[in-house]
Amino acid sequence: MMKQVKAYPAAITIFGAKGDLTKRKLIPALYNLFTDHHLPPAFNIYCVDFLAVDENEFRKDMLAGINEFSRSGTADEVTWNEFAERLFYIQGDFLKKETYTSLCEKIKAFEKQNEQNSSRIFYFATAPRFIEIISEALYKHNLCNRDGLDRIVIEKPFGTDLDSAKKLNRFLAKRFSEKQIYRIDHYLGKEAVQNIMAFRFANYVFEPLWNRKYIDHIQISVTEQVGVGKRGGYYDSSGALRDMIQNHLLQLLCIVGMECPKAYKSEVIRDAKTKVMKSVKAYTTPQVFKNVVRGQYTAGSINNMPRPAYRKEEQVQSGSNTETFVAAKLFIDNERWKGVPFFMRTGKSLPAQSSVIVVQFKDTPHKIFKDDIVPNRLIISIQPELEISLLFESKVPGLQMKLKPVEMDFTYKESYTETIPEAYEALLLDVLHGDATLFMRADQIEAAWKVVMPIIEAWEKYPEKDLHMYKAGSCGPTASGNLLKPFAKEWYELPFSKTEKAIPDLKSVQ
Amino acid sequence: MMKQVKAYPAAITIFGAKGDLTKRKLIPALYNLFTDHHLPPAFNIYCVDFLAVDENEFRKDMLAGINEFSRSGTADEVTWNEFAERLFYIQGDFLKKETYTSLCEKIKAFEKQNEQNSSRIFYFATAPRFIEIISEALYKHNLCNRDGLDRIVIEKPFGTDLDSAKKLNRFLAKRFSEKQIYRIDHYLGKEAVQNIMAFRFANYVFEPLWNRKYIDHIQISVTEQVGVGKRGGYYDSSGALRDMIQNHLLQLLCIVGMECPKAYKSEVIRDAKTKVMKSVKAYTTPQVFKNVVRGQYTAGSINNMPRPAYRKEEQVQSGSNTETFVAAKLFIDNERWKGVPFFMRTGKSLPAQSSVIVVQFKDTPHKIFKDDIVPNRLIISIQPELEISLLFESKVPGLQMKLKPVEMDFTYKESYTETIPEAYEALLLDVLHGDATLFMRADQIEAAWKVVMPIIEAWEKYPEKDLHMYKAGSCGPTASGNLLKPFAKEWYELPFSKTEKAIPDLKSVQ
Repeated sequence: MMKQVKAYPAAITIFGAKGDLTKRKLIPALYNLFTDHHLPPAFNIYCVDFLAVDENEFRKDMLAGINEFSRSGTADEVTWNEFAERLFYIQGDFLKKETYTSLCEKIKAFEKQNEQNSSRIFYFATAPRFIEIISEALYKHNLCNRDGLDRIVIEKPFGTDLDSAKKLNRFLAKRFSEKQIYRIDHYLGKEAVQNIMAFRFANYVFEPLWNRKYIDHIQISVTEQVGVGKRGGYYDSSGALRDMIQNHLLQLLCIVGMECPKAYKSEVIRDAKTKVMKSVKAYTTPQVFKNVVRGQYTAGSINNMPRPAYRKEEQVQSGSNTETFVAAKLFIDNERWKGVPFFMRTGKSLPAQSSVIVVQFKDTPHKIFKDDIVPNRLIISIQPELEISLLFESKVPGLQMKLKPVEMDFTYKESYTETIPEAYEALLLDVLHGDATLFMRADQIEAAWKVVMPIIEAWEKYPEKDLHMYKAGSCGPTASGNLLKPFAKEWYELPFSKTEKAIPDLKSVQ
Repeated sequence: MMKQVKAYPAAITIFGAKGDLTKRKLIPALYNLFTDHHLPPAFNIYCVDFLAVDENEFRKDMLAGINEFSRSGTADEVTWNEFAERLFYIQGDFLKKETYTSLCEKIKAFEKQNEQNSSRIFYFATAPRFIEIISEALYKHNLCNRDGLDRIVIEKPFGTDLDSAKKLNRFLAKRFSEKQIYRIDHYLGKEAVQNIMAFRFANYVFEPLWNRKYIDHIQISVTEQVGVGKRGGYYDSSGALRDMIQNHLLQLLCIVGMECPKAYKSEVIRDAKTKVMKSVKAYTTPQVFKNVVRGQYTAGSINNMPRPAYRKEEQVQSGSNTETFVAAKLFIDNERWKGVPFFMRTGKSLPAQSSVIVVQFKDTPHKIFKDDIVPNRLIISIQPELEISLLFESKVPGLQMKLKPVEMDFTYKESYTETIPEAYEALLLDVLHGDATLFMRADQIEAAWKVVMPIIEAWEKYPEKDLHMYKAGSCGPTASGNLLKPFAKEWYELPFSKTEKAIPDLKSVQ
């Protein structure tokens, strides 16, 4: 649990240095780790990309990224200068041998300065098509062949379907050991997501209730206010199911649904998560159309700003049937969860940016009060606010026995003075320390694809069937509400007002 | 549950008009009920006492009481004038016939003005020795003989031991039906206490945990900052066991420990409470000295003000062995609670004025985190603050999986705009509407005496044995801490600072 205090000297390489991810997330995260003394005393960061960029210009650009996107705000000059000295730009084509020989020389020179073993980290902040190419090159140049020291970090999408994911896993397995491969889903690094395991397994009052006997249903919503923005090209061939459900939402389902692991150890936890993922019921094509709703946004407005229809977005095909919204009712076929629906919802151009898990408990079986009783509800809010609250019935103060639901709240804002690290900080530090707990294992990725494959296949077979249009700024197609019946009346309400203040559009990547 | 909107016209008589209770609690409560339009359109209040007091002077004195002690602050002139017109002072000796004939004339004159039936309420705000005398007089004058309309309200102490309580019950039963007798324990009218039933029985998430399988122990503390003040004479012959445990604390135990009643109906609820009271295990004399700790305060200071020793207080015998502090470990012998200790604690001259119920859950059986896990704790605070909070383990924000207990809170202050009525308002309105739910029935009173009798007898037999002295301003004798072993390490900490602001000494009667 406690990360080892001393990490090996590290040569960190980022492929895709000029991409958004590097500027907005990776460098700010590394910089914050550096300022908080979490990076090893000796480290270098090699940023590789195709474009010819002056190293000083590149550093300036990264500084601008920190100043704009880092949780810690404007960088301190002295600290930045120290950090910048270890930040290098390598111009190189991912397809060319020279890129890797040049990288190899630099890493070896760095390692020569250190007396002890160094760790090598290779972060693939690239388009998916480069994963195999770079992997092969690293393999050929013996750049990443020490089991306990060298690691690659791969961003989603990890494959585009089960077959391609399997193929990619096999390809990587031939070149690296599984323990060298860190498949990142930044959702798992989020503070409030990490807390779910603590909440479930360190508190005896929740675990006895955490099953079909007491839980009516669970809602997992990850909603985005943004449209596709500049990602239209990628998104149009992907869609919400692949982009969000297959990874983020199914990962949340695993954490909420998993059995208590025997220990807080990487493989034990990943076993437990994989096990519950494998227990998600697979649908037939008719079941898909009954249990999964897809939608696509049309023109509308959010915060009084007009929004184009999805089909009018940059790089999107004018007749595209790609879904920008998915709502699904999933079941976990095991003793704990049999018959308890997990309602998943995600979409773009929705009224709010939010990630919320709602555990809806069953109705009180024996009612002694005359008022309608609203069943208990546990709300785990991941963003915009980090909160856990429990809705319960309470007597309204006054001279009558009248009940009304109220909330018991726990907010990070009020409870902690500690700063909340960005997900990428937590995850990058884990990579440096070789802790794979929060990363997805090959079998879990494949299990997740197995859950979504019947849906992909049904939709491909009937590309226009039940594709519901919804106005940008609305809460999605009304069909998604019908999905809840007879369990729930409605989806948990999106936190409109809160969001508009808390999350500027700009950072909505995360 | 919903009180009937229309109540009968009411003739309310208060015996003991010049006592503290009338001025501080009863008249302010009736006045607030009046301003909130809860009193019936036709009512008169007859205040009876021995002293010769001019009626206008009496009214002025009551107005001063409202202005000083009412939750609503200074009275509105117009409203007060309306109220005062219905407020009468009757000078009379409780022992003399004339008092009742005079009262009878007045009530009959009032009733003549009303076309419908009137209700008669007789409130005994007197020393206990007058209960039988006044009851007999009411009986003889046929003042309180209509089953559904006429009621008497009796304040504690209700007897001084089991025999005297039984005798009093039999005495009253010959003169009134049980449904006419309202034995008041103002604790049961407190908003937060009334809410405990709603909390337990309208929320499905708590009831499954509310038993020996999940609960380690329960602490019920009702602590007072005040000493005996001017009540030394009464108190010295009573002590904390009779004054607090026999009523307030055992009533709280009943509400926390009772089974879910079949319905929210007066007799059903009182059955359930009586049942659990009867299940409290009775102790032998050696068990008393093992499981019950008594204490008496010595000189000390609170809030930097010196406090005298109990034995130096006004009207207290210099060699008194009367306990001003009791801590007890009680067990409820039934399926739900077998083996779960209920720790009760009450005392005077303690650092804070507070009433708190702490439900301590068991330790997580399977620990997967390295940190020490603090078991869950549900805290129901009745005063000074009205709050419910749940202590649970949560991941501390940061780059390590480190746990620390935090609280999920529900406070009346933040959750409600409704004003919180005083306990006496709730209870007086119930009397007017003939709702006895929150009042103690004869059998419950006797059951409570049965619980404390072995303690009284053991202490009377060995008047000096294990009488622990504690300094005024301390948390009571250290022996009370030993009582908790091996279940708990310590008593729930008294809310020092909060209290000093919230509760001026003056109101500490309640």
